[in-house]
Amino acid sequence: MRFEARGHLIDAGILGKALDAVTAAGGSYEVAHFDIGRHTDEPSRVVLDVSAASPRTMRTIEDNLGALGFSTPVESDVETKAVRKDGVAPDGFYSTTNLPTRVRVDGRWRDVKTQRMDAVIVVGDGAPACVKLRDLRRGQRVVLGHRGVAVTPDTHEREASDFAFMSSDVSSERRSEMQAKLLAERWRATKRDGKKVVVVAGPVVVHSGQADAFAGLVRRGWVDALLAGNALAVHDVEAATLGTSLGVSQDTGQPVVHGHMNHMRAINLVRGAGGLKGAVRKGLLKRGLMHAVVESGVPYCLAGSIRDDGPLPDTEMDLVAAQERYTKLLRGAGLVVVLGTMLHGIGVGNMLPASVTLVCVDINPAVASKLADRGSSHTLPIVTDAGLFVASLAKELSGKARRG
Amino acid sequence: MRFEARGHLIDAGILGKALDAVTAAGGSYEVAHFDIGRHTDEPSRVVLDVSAASPRTMRTIEDNLGALGFSTPVESDVETKAVRKDGVAPDGFYSTTNLPTRVRVDGRWRDVKTQRMDAVIVVGDGAPACVKLRDLRRGQRVVLGHRGVAVTPDTHEREASDFAFMSSDVSSERRSEMQAKLLAERWRATKRDGKKVVVVAGPVVVHSGQADAFAGLVRRGWVDALLAGNALAVHDVEAATLGTSLGVSQDTGQPVVHGHMNHMRAINLVRGAGGLKGAVRKGLLKRGLMHAVVESGVPYCLAGSIRDDGPLPDTEMDLVAAQERYTKLLRGAGLVVVLGTMLHGIGVGNMLPASVTLVCVDINPAVASKLADRGSSHTLPIVTDAGLFVASLAKELSGKARRG
Amino acid sequence: MRFEARGHLIDAGILGKALDAVTAAGGSYEVAHFDIGRHTDEPSRVVLDVSAASPRTMRTIEDNLGALGFSTPVESDVETKAVRKDGVAPDGFYSTTNLPTRVRVDGRWRDVKTQRMDAVIVVGDGAPACVKLRDLRRGQRVVLGHRGVAVTPDTHEREASDFAFMSSDVSSERRSEMQAKLLAERWRATKRDGKKVVVVAGPVVVHSGQADAFAGLVRRGWVDALLAGNALAVHDVEAATLGTSLGVSQDTGQPVVHGHMNHMRAINLVRGAGGLKGAVRKGLLKRGLMHAVVESGVPYCLAGSIRDDGPLPDTEMDLVAAQERYTKLLRGAGLVVVLGTMLHGIGVGNMLPASVTLVCVDINPAVASKLADRGSSHTLPIVTDAGLFVASLAKELSGKARRG
Amino acid sequence: MRFEARGHLIDAGILGKALDAVTAAGGSYEVAHFDIGRHTDEPSRVVLDVSAASPRTMRTIEDNLGALGFSTPVESDVETKAVRKDGVAPDGFYSTTNLPTRVRVDGRWRDVKTQRMDAVIVVGDGAPACVKLRDLRRGQRVVLGHRGVAVTPDTHEREASDFAFMSSDVSSERRSEMQAKLLAERWRATKRDGKKVVVVAGPVVVHSGQADAFAGLVRRGWVDALLAGNALAVHDVEAATLGTSLGVSQDTGQPVVHGHMNHMRAINLVRGAGGLKGAVRKGLLKRGLMHAVVESGVPYCLAGSIRDDGPLPDTEMDLVAAQERYTKLLRGAGLVVVLGTMLHGIGVGNMLPASVTLVCVDINPAVASKLADRGSSHTLPIVTDAGLFVASLAKELSGKARRG
Repeated sequence: MRFEARGHLIDAGILGKALDAVTAAGGSYEVAHFDIGRHTDEPSRVVLDVSAASPRTMRTIEDNLGALGFSTPVESDVETKAVRKDGVAPDGFYSTTNLPTRVRVDGRWRDVKTQRMDAVIVVGDGAPACVKLRDLRRGQRVVLGHRGVAVTPDTHEREASDFAFMSSDVSSERRSEMQAKLLAERWRATKRDGKKVVVVAGPVVVHSGQADAFAGLVRRGWVDALLAGNALAVHDVEAATLGTSLGVSQDTGQPVVHGHMNHMRAINLVRGAGGLKGAVRKGLLKRGLMHAVVESGVPYCLAGSIRDDGPLPDTEMDLVAAQERYTKLLRGAGLVVVLGTMLHGIGVGNMLPASVTLVCVDINPAVASKLADRGSSHTLPIVTDAGLFVASLAKELSGKARRG
Repeated sequence: MRFEARGHLIDAGILGKALDAVTAAGGSYEVAHFDIGRHTDEPSRVVLDVSAASPRTMRTIEDNLGALGFSTPVESDVETKAVRKDGVAPDGFYSTTNLPTRVRVDGRWRDVKTQRMDAVIVVGDGAPACVKLRDLRRGQRVVLGHRGVAVTPDTHEREASDFAFMSSDVSSERRSEMQAKLLAERWRATKRDGKKVVVVAGPVVVHSGQADAFAGLVRRGWVDALLAGNALAVHDVEAATLGTSLGVSQDTGQPVVHGHMNHMRAINLVRGAGGLKGAVRKGLLKRGLMHAVVESGVPYCLAGSIRDDGPLPDTEMDLVAAQERYTKLLRGAGLVVVLGTMLHGIGVGNMLPASVTLVCVDINPAVASKLADRGSSHTLPIVTDAGLFVASLAKELSGKARRG
Repeated sequence: MRFEARGHLIDAGILGKALDAVTAAGGSYEVAHFDIGRHTDEPSRVVLDVSAASPRTMRTIEDNLGALGFSTPVESDVETKAVRKDGVAPDGFYSTTNLPTRVRVDGRWRDVKTQRMDAVIVVGDGAPACVKLRDLRRGQRVVLGHRGVAVTPDTHEREASDFAFMSSDVSSERRSEMQAKLLAERWRATKRDGKKVVVVAGPVVVHSGQADAFAGLVRRGWVDALLAGNALAVHDVEAATLGTSLGVSQDTGQPVVHGHMNHMRAINLVRGAGGLKGAVRKGLLKRGLMHAVVESGVPYCLAGSIRDDGPLPDTEMDLVAAQERYTKLLRGAGLVVVLGTMLHGIGVGNMLPASVTLVCVDINPAVASKLADRGSSHTLPIVTDAGLFVASLAKELSGKARRG
Repeated sequence: MRFEARGHLIDAGILGKALDAVTAAGGSYEVAHFDIGRHTDEPSRVVLDVSAASPRTMRTIEDNLGALGFSTPVESDVETKAVRKDGVAPDGFYSTTNLPTRVRVDGRWRDVKTQRMDAVIVVGDGAPACVKLRDLRRGQRVVLGHRGVAVTPDTHEREASDFAFMSSDVSSERRSEMQAKLLAERWRATKRDGKKVVVVAGPVVVHSGQADAFAGLVRRGWVDALLAGNALAVHDVEAATLGTSLGVSQDTGQPVVHGHMNHMRAINLVRGAGGLKGAVRKGLLKRGLMHAVVESGVPYCLAGSIRDDGPLPDTEMDLVAAQERYTKLLRGAGLVVVLGTMLHGIGVGNMLPASVTLVCVDINPAVASKLADRGSSHTLPIVTDAGLFVASLAKELSGKARRG
């Protein structure tokens, strides 16, 4: 069978992967044509003739090459099958990546909307779109296999330029100050482009004493949405009202006797006020990060977890709803910055198309690795003390910008 | 004011903490009486006369000494106040620890039921009990401050004997084989005592190829309840039906091309069957950990998280319900073993009284530290490869025991 | 047998440890007398009557209580035995801790000089002194067993006051900015007291771009000695002369093509000049940390290791000589700050008496744990990005001080 | 200028890197010819015409392409310059990688002997060879720049087949049992090929209670040389003679009172016997790893470090001598297994040509990353508990083999 691809096949390593994929599946190839781009910006074009001992092997190869952006010269439409039970896909469904994808329907290639990982593609009256398993409804037509599916290979790396160095490895022996500077530049560029910057933050931002620095960023319009868990808000309110976080004094760094009570008092205060907005309105919450978020009207979602105390009335304990809200707030994002939270970082990584840059700041190199492992291929890990990094970042961004 | 305490004041370090607590709060003390136990098992008794410059300081000292198990010779009942709004405690509420606690009501000391951290104490017609903020109902009477509250000091360490070494530090340079052996002994002893052993497991148990070893423990009756997240079950079903976990072959350890699709297919399979029990009943799921859990009738709860794909129909995405179910399954536990999951481990730690031993097995020393930091004082950390540890543990327990 | 101790027996936990030591060894005790200090600053006094089934058990108990600062009312001199072979101690030698120690010779208690861990005590014409095994010479008299040896219990913790919080746990979720501030205060206090501050630094200080910040501290007289390995100096010279560290550009953070050659060129440059001083004198090395060290006349020692390239002529590849030089430079130190190097940090920890505060800054919590495990009991771990921490520290110390 | 390369240019990613290198340096290219291998095993061939604005840029490009295995069709000999001072290379010297390298001398391409990283190439009467800076002698001719130097690109990855999965990422969520099995297979294959297997071990092997398991491998001829530090041998002797390692009982896992003395007694015992061989001969050392090593006649080197106590007479404290000995023992190795020691692992990594497989077993993912970072490109990291891994490995290798 003859396959063809076109694009930056060499520098993105696609051709190598393709040849590997053929032989790994048990097939063999001949290179029928190969036109390499003669200059930097010219695309290459390759035509492969592939042989396989069985139709099953050939089907595997076809799937694999399809995922790399190869197509068969004799193009065919996608196969589809109707959903028979709400929330369940037909057998053999195609499961999406986070790369830009097109499907061929009625002889025409169409872009898939709301691209994300681990979804199925539904085609029908409107544009083809990614749909989560649980959102499937009886009668919708779901794409099967790889036929008629074209994935745009990932050439992102080439474009990342000076920002790319962060992805070269996961190491703490890097110049964190420079990384803060480069991230600030990317942040400004994203705002200039009219895209959103979404921050996903863990409680370390508060424990490390950087809630006010972060609040400053919020007040100056740098943050378009805040995604977090219950703990970030709880400890921020605890720090703002009682001067401790998890019972440790923000002034002296010393544990306060019975300090573990403080976060419960903070929770109770917000519960009594009916939520964070109520607490701000009633003058019970006068400073800190969540105060800034509420006052600045920055949209936020606090997603619940099994370890949550309370929770705050603002915390969404129904995770289906929380995922919907996260997804909605991420729409239009050009840059997502994860500060010290593996849980919410992975959650967000699952929801994003590959075109969104995801920066993950964590003191634990395993966290960054884990995000990258899960296929969030554009995760740029920064292994450093998240608290000190927020301080550096706030300094870089301060006084220089406004909301996009 | 005169305070008195009785018990293992020296070897559990309580007397030292008490003297510190007085001076740290700005008070001073004289030791009025001190009778030290003359033999190993005799309790000591101390009477302190404490002075403080202000009533506020004295109140702080009173609170602090109360938490350490001291009482004023002139005993008084707890102060209480009624809940005025569902889910919100009155100001000044007492927030619980996980240590055994008694409250004095109507001149009588009574044990607090369902002891756990971060709850309030409700007194009324029945026995005093720990209640979570969100479960408070209008009209319930909540204990304020520390007056009339007596916490039994934590003397657990003394009793732990040979098992205690695990708590000495958080280090990977320990003899994991011996730790597996000691844990197995403790496991057997717990079953002999008629108490439950509850396992809290992360997906590393499956990724590391130990699902079958763990399933064997389940089948032989060693596990009384399984608490986990969506991912454990998803990857177990993926491994049982497609031979991969997160797309990595269980046989060769190599990533399978398009293997990321497999966990979605596993999810879809279970969704189609209406849940894990359905999948077992219909013969779609024939092996692995969840198969063993279903067949053995071991109760389980899969608590949702923001990063979950699918989820499985069995996964509880309403976290209030999930916390209730976790709490219920933990009732009667004497030993809880956490395998490679910080998230669910902390969740469980919050729910347990201090008398339950919590063993946390993780390759990352920071995870064990974090559990201990949160006041789960009886967490025994084992820093090792969770997969290899399960294999060792299964070998230790195999052939030697049955459900208690 | 009757034992007696006096001091802060309660708040330093010594009495509890003593009672444990007796029962752990198989003995039993009665408390004959116990006078507790009635006020904060009064010492306590305890007399124990200990029974044991065998002389061997009693000897073990005697040893154990001796190490905790207990003495038998009938005091006896140390037993000694002469060295028969250079570098080899007689059987049964007493091996030292890093705590202040006295020995009874000719009926008189005398302080042991140059206290350090893992040495033997030699008594003779001069004052008793710690001597390393390899430095023993034929004929020297070495202390055997614990008889006549009194160790001053470790009550350091009580005194550490506000600085102590760092030792409470090994966690990255701390306010690193505050820790930098507190360390700066301690640093200033040490200089005011006329004691030395010695810095032990790994190459991360250079890789993270903080060589100039650190050089500023050196130039302003904050550093009394620098202990490091070959790599710190190599990468500092590489950065100062070629603008890269380990081949990564200090300006852009990007790896330079063939950049791995640069550290070899840096080594060759220094070799050609006969050493760092020569390189400075010849004008080949004009900036950076080692330039500051040389120009400021700060004494330094670069200790070799098996992984060293080159090495620089300044690097001491004879480790016996390197250990001697380290020990000499540490004499008179009141504060030792370890920045990102486990190897040299442990080396230094072994050489110090317990009275010297050892602060260990590392992004890896296991490093700090490891130092503490080895008995460097006054190690205060700071888990953070060493580069950003140096920047914070330099800011705290800048403009405010001069060499003591 | 016209450049040409031949080989597996696509699947090893070399062509992509080459095009990047040209544009990164500021040049531009046209692809004059490109013949892609039509089948899996056919080499490709490419000819590039490169333009650059300045001779300096062109020189950089020439260097870069040279390192990737490109040559100019008009070949030239290497440039050389004589050493003028012992131990110092002439300016502009070529610094080696660990990849197979050829140099063109007198019109003939010749292989460079004793390939290793960070050396210079000396040409003269004999074959061209890698020489360390410190071993250079006045008058030797050293290669300058990249002209006439051809590096064979790294195509190792392709060949690694099933063993390769280990290198795919640094993660602890892998099936360690399978990794032990695959390593055992590679180990057997290496012996069958008549190559040496060298083990580099840290003290964790003893602390984790696996000294006997490891000793069994030694006795059965699986280990051709042992490279380690002082601590491995000290704690092994401590365990063999006193039953503790670092004062922790091997039987109970509990710290022994005054147990820190034990390692000093172990050191003294060996010092008294004049070394490990003496201790074995005199019957003082009757079991454990070092006993097995001595009895089996396996060559070993214990390299000193700044943190060493004692040291043992066997420990080489002169690191120049230790590096020579390490290098010598590594000659002929086909597989090097590093168990729980970053220090010695990096030391060994620096000494090896790229053709030797280096497996690094460590519980800390940062250790494996660090080895890979330093250009030890064939490092296969296994993130697991080194102790449990040795147990698995010993089981895999036991009863199935003998020395090759």
